[in-house]
Amino acid sequence: MQAIDLAQKLDTFTEHWQPRVVGQFNGHDLMVVKVKGEFVWHQHPDTDDFFMVLHGHITIRLRDGDVRLGPGEVFVVPKGVEHCPVAEEEAHLLLIEPMGTPNTGDRATAQPRRVV
Amino acid sequence: MQAIDLAQKLDTFTEHWQPRVVGQFNGHDLMVVKVKGEFVWHQHPDTDDFFMVLHGHITIRLRDGDVRLGPGEVFVVPKGVEHCPVAEEEAHLLLIEPMGTPNTGDRATAQPRRVV
Repeated sequence: MQAIDLAQKLDTFTEHWQPRVVGQFNGHDLMVVKVKGEFVWHQHPDTDDFFMVLHGHITIRLRDGDVRLGPGEVFVVPKGVEHCPVAEEEAHLLLIEPMGTPNTGDRATAQPRRVV
Repeated sequence: MQAIDLAQKLDTFTEHWQPRVVGQFNGHDLMVVKVKGEFVWHQHPDTDDFFMVLHGHITIRLRDGDVRLGPGEVFVVPKGVEHCPVAEEEAHLLLIEPMGTPNTGDRATAQPRRVV
């Protein structure tokens, strides 16, 4: 058993919007992801969606307003709430979702789970 | 709905080993805590235990070795595994546990859930 160094895990890839699984917790995947640009509007009907910014800034667009997040800030999108993450510059995030949750909310368009 | 600024939440108290609830995620409490010195050996029979260091360093003692964590590092103690967190100097952590989990593994000695 050893510590998970999130920065070291982020150094192993460059792609945007392709989360990497770095660990598990109570049936959830712990993931790091690099993001830049605009994702897609989506929602997760069965789970909350945990975002923590490790580097940079993101905006999580919601239908009733935007939430802006910087380093050391967390936001939990409640289950069923439509959201669209956006990053003007590259940002690095910690994500937590139940194992197997499609990142787009739709298995047809979701990224596969990649482990680093 | 707004971002949770973990550093701002940590600025609201000084006590050690008294987690503060800052949010919820899928039936779990998101908590920040300041730690210094040695906690107690304990285990949680029904849940993994998520630690992320935000500031400083901690050692999580396990029966078969120590895990050392610095800023941006995560460790998940599997459910049922005895552990004892230790910090030589003050450290700040993000913790995630199912709502109501006693921090010592024992309701008789656990800190109450405090919300900030």
